[in-house]
Amino acid sequence: MKKYQLCSKEELNLEIEKLEKEYDKYKSMNLKLNMARGKPCKEQLDLSMAMMDVLNSSADLNCEDGIDCRNYGVLGGIEECKRLLGDIIEVPSKNIIIYGNSSLDVMYECISRSYSHGVLGEKPWCKLDKPVKWLCPVPGYDRHFAITEYFGFEMINIPMNSDGPDMDMVEELIKDEMVKGIWCVPKYSNPDGTTYSEEVVKRFANLKPAAKDFRIYWDNAYSVHHLYDDNQDFLLEILDECKKAGNPDLVYKFTSTSKITFPGSGIAALATSDRNIEEIENQMGIETIGFDKVNQLRHVRFFKNLDGVKKQMKLHANILRPKFELVLDEFDKNLSDLDIAWWTKPHGGYFISLYCREPVASFVVKDCKDLGLTLTPAGSAYPYHLDPDNSNIRIAPSFPALDDLKVACEILTLSVKLESAKYLYNNK
Amino acid sequence: MKKYQLCSKEELNLEIEKLEKEYDKYKSMNLKLNMARGKPCKEQLDLSMAMMDVLNSSADLNCEDGIDCRNYGVLGGIEECKRLLGDIIEVPSKNIIIYGNSSLDVMYECISRSYSHGVLGEKPWCKLDKPVKWLCPVPGYDRHFAITEYFGFEMINIPMNSDGPDMDMVEELIKDEMVKGIWCVPKYSNPDGTTYSEEVVKRFANLKPAAKDFRIYWDNAYSVHHLYDDNQDFLLEILDECKKAGNPDLVYKFTSTSKITFPGSGIAALATSDRNIEEIENQMGIETIGFDKVNQLRHVRFFKNLDGVKKQMKLHANILRPKFELVLDEFDKNLSDLDIAWWTKPHGGYFISLYCREPVASFVVKDCKDLGLTLTPAGSAYPYHLDPDNSNIRIAPSFPALDDLKVACEILTLSVKLESAKYLYNNK
Repeated sequence: MKKYQLCSKEELNLEIEKLEKEYDKYKSMNLKLNMARGKPCKEQLDLSMAMMDVLNSSADLNCEDGIDCRNYGVLGGIEECKRLLGDIIEVPSKNIIIYGNSSLDVMYECISRSYSHGVLGEKPWCKLDKPVKWLCPVPGYDRHFAITEYFGFEMINIPMNSDGPDMDMVEELIKDEMVKGIWCVPKYSNPDGTTYSEEVVKRFANLKPAAKDFRIYWDNAYSVHHLYDDNQDFLLEILDECKKAGNPDLVYKFTSTSKITFPGSGIAALATSDRNIEEIENQMGIETIGFDKVNQLRHVRFFKNLDGVKKQMKLHANILRPKFELVLDEFDKNLSDLDIAWWTKPHGGYFISLYCREPVASFVVKDCKDLGLTLTPAGSAYPYHLDPDNSNIRIAPSFPALDDLKVACEILTLSVKLESAKYLYNNK
Repeated sequence: MKKYQLCSKEELNLEIEKLEKEYDKYKSMNLKLNMARGKPCKEQLDLSMAMMDVLNSSADLNCEDGIDCRNYGVLGGIEECKRLLGDIIEVPSKNIIIYGNSSLDVMYECISRSYSHGVLGEKPWCKLDKPVKWLCPVPGYDRHFAITEYFGFEMINIPMNSDGPDMDMVEELIKDEMVKGIWCVPKYSNPDGTTYSEEVVKRFANLKPAAKDFRIYWDNAYSVHHLYDDNQDFLLEILDECKKAGNPDLVYKFTSTSKITFPGSGIAALATSDRNIEEIENQMGIETIGFDKVNQLRHVRFFKNLDGVKKQMKLHANILRPKFELVLDEFDKNLSDLDIAWWTKPHGGYFISLYCREPVASFVVKDCKDLGLTLTPAGSAYPYHLDPDNSNIRIAPSFPALDDLKVACEILTLSVKLESAKYLYNNK
């Protein structure tokens, strides 16, 4: 088939008729498939089952400081766990706080605390006369945007380039003191799989925002989540760069083991400067007596050290790689000649971004739903769910089995073709 | 020795000299004892070690709904865990949300959410012109008061009677629409061990506060924490009473397994009305993808049902009862003739309250510290750490071994005698 753009109205009509027949065929199959969320599959979860044995009833549950992990106390996490998570995100243990099972929760807490009590002595955001503004590189993570929307912040789209957010725009916008933060997924970004370049990280570290309480929310969710041994992205460590730039307090950096062990019961961490750590622990001491230290100890005893984590991530990659490659192959096979879509080819993380050339993403997602394939709703990767081009579809290949994934890709590419052809036909 | 009040100045002087010699004897022992916090002891923690084996690497980690507890999802907690915690606090599972390991954190979250976003459509508390007021039955739990202090609320002391807070005062104060809540530990209260009477619970359930967003923070931390088989307090279930009174949304009820399994890695829950649950889950869905379901499943598989919990609580009681009785015996033996102190004799919970007749609590705590015994700081059980009578000392007998506890009580009662005698001598 030639490029749709070059087809006549008649050719498009014939193509649509053909695609609709295929559509009906899938429709009759009553499928139930899901590529909506970056959820590890059962085989990935099974990789951590040995973790369930490391702390049995005869285990010593004292951590290396001699503290009984079963009891109250140790606000910021046990030392060996700080060290392990610190190693994962390349930060000294003294600059780490360990939380519960959700890094999203940690980010929410940071915003909630800034809103109710302010940042390092600045006015609480809830007491400001005007609404807080927040920078949102797009496409980005829907749950980030949901938090800043919930707090009533005015979200401003920042286009993503191949090396990270448009830094000219960021540098310009932070001159406004109502701009208090930016969401970043700097490595294998959600959903594009982009890793910020050294230049971008350095420009971030050297930002001079008008607001003293401006913070970069650096969600390093995929720091060790490579797909390949030999083709890995490298991300400059930002806290260190901030220190060098004389901006030590500028960043809150987040990570978790959600996609290393169990998403439902991993551990999350915050890494930041000494001053920020001190302020945050003061507030934490009001909120809780401490997070689940037994689970912290369980993770440390299971992995032992960063090498243990890296070995585990290779096993994850062995499961994920064929799934990513299958999706890319299907896209290539079914779409590449038609000039109706392009897509990202990430070296890690959990997502592939598919972009429709025509503004049909929402129709594609609707068709897929109709055929039994659940996708992330169109627009999800944009603040207020508004994709200005109605173009982006986030693909999460991790959860379905390979066979299901193949059918899912057939349905998805069929829907892209059908909706693109219909759009071009109607606009000819 | 006769009552100190009846002693002459000379008699008191002789007594002080005698007590100071004893003081020096303990001083030379270089002790290190702690009765400061309601921390379970090692033997209590060991009661739950079998829980570490119920989910081993060959266990089925699907909950009864067939959901894989290792993965993302299930915001409000798995059904069987809601049922178990619901049974513990006598509430249907549909009115339960399961959280992480800390009920304090759940209470903080409730206040934080009300502060930033309001309660059921009412104005967020951070947007009010005047500070929120909060009722604080005293003595009470220091960490409760720390939360309301952190949010800048004006805390108002409510005296505790033998059957609960002074309800005349509560009923009067809630006519002020700036009064938005009250802290309650309704069963085996911290620190007095008081259980609210049926009449008090019914008066709570029938409150008609001026503020629609007034909530009773009902911290049912010690619901099944009896010391005796045959001498247990009974607490009327408040959510049910609120429903009967046409006030279904009035209460947030909290509980946790912190003092049932492991304080560091238990599970916490909130119980409240359908409308409150819906509002809170909407917010939770912004904050997190869900709490640790593996730990929820672990608790359910370990206990099976409420009977399992009750059996466990008897084992706890067998460890705690001798400790409480030792403290009461020592108080009786060393203090009862002197008319310088009185104390509570709870049927459950974690604390005994000791009241000094003279305003010397802070000096007693200081003396004990000097002798190597750490107590909860004097005043801790009152908002802003201000005990108007400088009288109350919170005793936590759970953690020390019996031998240590005996020495701790000797030191404590010695210090009470010494400071009372000194006070009376100086004020004669």
